[in-house]
Amino acid sequence: MAQYPEFNPQPRILLGPGPSNVSPRVLKAMASPVLGHLDPDYVALMEDIKKLLRAVFQTANEITFPVSGTGSAGMESALASLIEEGDEAVVGVNGVFGTRAADCAERLGARVHRVEAEWGRIVEPAQIEAALKACKRPKLVAVVHAETSTGVLQPVEEIARLAHQHGALMVLDAVTSLGCIPVHIDQWQIDACYSCTQKGLSAPPGLAPLTLSERALAAMRARKSKCRSWYLDVSMIAQYWGAERVYHHTAPISMNYALYEALRIVLEEGLEARWRRHRQNAAALQAGLAAMGLAFVAQEGHRLPQLSAVAVPAGVGEAAIRTALLRTYNMEIGAGLGPFKGKVWRIGLMGESSRRENVVLVLNALEQLLTAAGVEIARGRALAAADAVYAQSA
Amino acid sequence: MAQYPEFNPQPRILLGPGPSNVSPRVLKAMASPVLGHLDPDYVALMEDIKKLLRAVFQTANEITFPVSGTGSAGMESALASLIEEGDEAVVGVNGVFGTRAADCAERLGARVHRVEAEWGRIVEPAQIEAALKACKRPKLVAVVHAETSTGVLQPVEEIARLAHQHGALMVLDAVTSLGCIPVHIDQWQIDACYSCTQKGLSAPPGLAPLTLSERALAAMRARKSKCRSWYLDVSMIAQYWGAERVYHHTAPISMNYALYEALRIVLEEGLEARWRRHRQNAAALQAGLAAMGLAFVAQEGHRLPQLSAVAVPAGVGEAAIRTALLRTYNMEIGAGLGPFKGKVWRIGLMGESSRRENVVLVLNALEQLLTAAGVEIARGRALAAADAVYAQSA
Repeated sequence: MAQYPEFNPQPRILLGPGPSNVSPRVLKAMASPVLGHLDPDYVALMEDIKKLLRAVFQTANEITFPVSGTGSAGMESALASLIEEGDEAVVGVNGVFGTRAADCAERLGARVHRVEAEWGRIVEPAQIEAALKACKRPKLVAVVHAETSTGVLQPVEEIARLAHQHGALMVLDAVTSLGCIPVHIDQWQIDACYSCTQKGLSAPPGLAPLTLSERALAAMRARKSKCRSWYLDVSMIAQYWGAERVYHHTAPISMNYALYEALRIVLEEGLEARWRRHRQNAAALQAGLAAMGLAFVAQEGHRLPQLSAVAVPAGVGEAAIRTALLRTYNMEIGAGLGPFKGKVWRIGLMGESSRRENVVLVLNALEQLLTAAGVEIARGRALAAADAVYAQSA
Repeated sequence: MAQYPEFNPQPRILLGPGPSNVSPRVLKAMASPVLGHLDPDYVALMEDIKKLLRAVFQTANEITFPVSGTGSAGMESALASLIEEGDEAVVGVNGVFGTRAADCAERLGARVHRVEAEWGRIVEPAQIEAALKACKRPKLVAVVHAETSTGVLQPVEEIARLAHQHGALMVLDAVTSLGCIPVHIDQWQIDACYSCTQKGLSAPPGLAPLTLSERALAAMRARKSKCRSWYLDVSMIAQYWGAERVYHHTAPISMNYALYEALRIVLEEGLEARWRRHRQNAAALQAGLAAMGLAFVAQEGHRLPQLSAVAVPAGVGEAAIRTALLRTYNMEIGAGLGPFKGKVWRIGLMGESSRRENVVLVLNALEQLLTAAGVEIARGRALAAADAVYAQSA
């Protein structure tokens, strides 16, 4: 066993697209003794998790619980529970995660109408409307609130209104938005929304908070065929998370401890204050990146505060800079995905990672490394630009 | 937030069907700082986890990794990756978990031949053979190695031989067996096997170790249609766990820390020693339960060492005894499932929970509580019977 020593990872500054840094309070919760999944004390915790999740999702939805998998399991759980063979689904596709939702819906038997936009641009509500009009009987519309591959913030409310006008359910991917920016499930009339634990909520990855409206439940009840997934079938999972406590699967107990503690931290800070913190740190970071001369991938006016995607400047190896960040500064940022591979960096300021000290560190590190690599950037301006943002909002 | 205090669970003695008790070493690993899912140090850990899992599964299978969900996610991942619409699947059904596999396979589009046996009895190889003969072109045979709902140990080797004779793949549910009793993937010629982390391996629940043979991979490659599941599609997950490191989903980082530490513990003890420990403690427990006059649900000669299912004696409330065990002795045992609800207790001695002190505690507690409830049992014999087993094997 000498070749398998104890694993003691070096703590990192996590400024990629997730996971974000995890509070010591949450790590401590992970080490709590494991209870049985039907232990009365654990069942009481489940009830509290549902209540706290409702507060964070801004919803009164009864069906609000974490799916026992990562964010993509939440996506599949929502889509699999709603889609039946032949259903029409309108899916906004302007990055990796819209592409993924369309693929998932197709595997589940849907006829998918892909509404495409260039990567870095939003999907326009008018495009969605046109696709809805082209449908015979659209079952649902799905869009990604925060497209993690491009840093685009997708407007949602108008699309939800259009979906309902056409008798369709509105499905929202809030994997990279929940806990970072406003997500108003009830006010926006979202019917199914899923997220993750390792970004805005700053718990480790492993669960997918999910919430479903009464309309979504009615659609589930009206199904003529069983959900294609056994593991992710909300109608069965809900009986374990509901008063019945029917055994379905053994919940990831420790991950639920972590989620509970993370939600406590979110609500202690308060949603408004948390969103403001994300906005402020992002404004400082983005001012610094712009001052350095780096260009954003996302269209202006639709940039996420929690994730900034910038074009890699000419003449520098994308991976070499990330490796140097990791080895010299102990800091992780994200690479580009799909067509952006090798061309884009993604800098996240999510949850616990959204801090002034991280803004300073990453701007300084990038300036030093790009300068050392001989890239033409505007020097000595980034930190001043960031500090000016903080001074202005002080 | 006063109504949501910090959650500090009371440690329990976990003698149910899982989770089993978790070593402090594993709990400590859970609290390690979270790395990114593509961090080079995390990627190196993934490689080690694959190697350790191969040792525990007794296999050289390249595709051996934990699926990012609980045991049932492993089941669905195996079945969804192999089954295409209209495929014939022969499924042994003699308890909850065979029923579940049959349901899952049907949802995935299989034509399922259910091979039923009474709960508490094994599925006879001859029955499987008859079902295979009734198939046109069977795609796979699936059986449950350790039926958690009944405590039955299913013979596997002959069924695997029959499956291959008929050109079918052999799928094995090792959720309740891996780490407790011998599981020989290569020797038995198993093509797909899945397990969990929270039983024989004594990590918290949240991952499903999975291994697939070359034959299974060939079947996956020969698919004419995409896997119905996006999240559990082995062909995609394998690209993240393989050398390509293609991003699929964000792995449950901390759970993988826990699994690594748990596997280290398993292999430090050694598989042979671990199986022997499970056999010995089970022999003592079962001798004690028999001496008390309690009757086993599983047929003789096919009882699991890690899980003993006993009939609740007449005249006592099944749940009342479990509640008293929890409140007075801080000890969890399992209730019956399905037709066994209210009629059966399931006492687990799995992984860290398989200890002499737990055998003594549960026998003493049951004797005290049943006596107090006025049940006619043979008193004062259980502990002596258990001790005799230990003395004999000393």
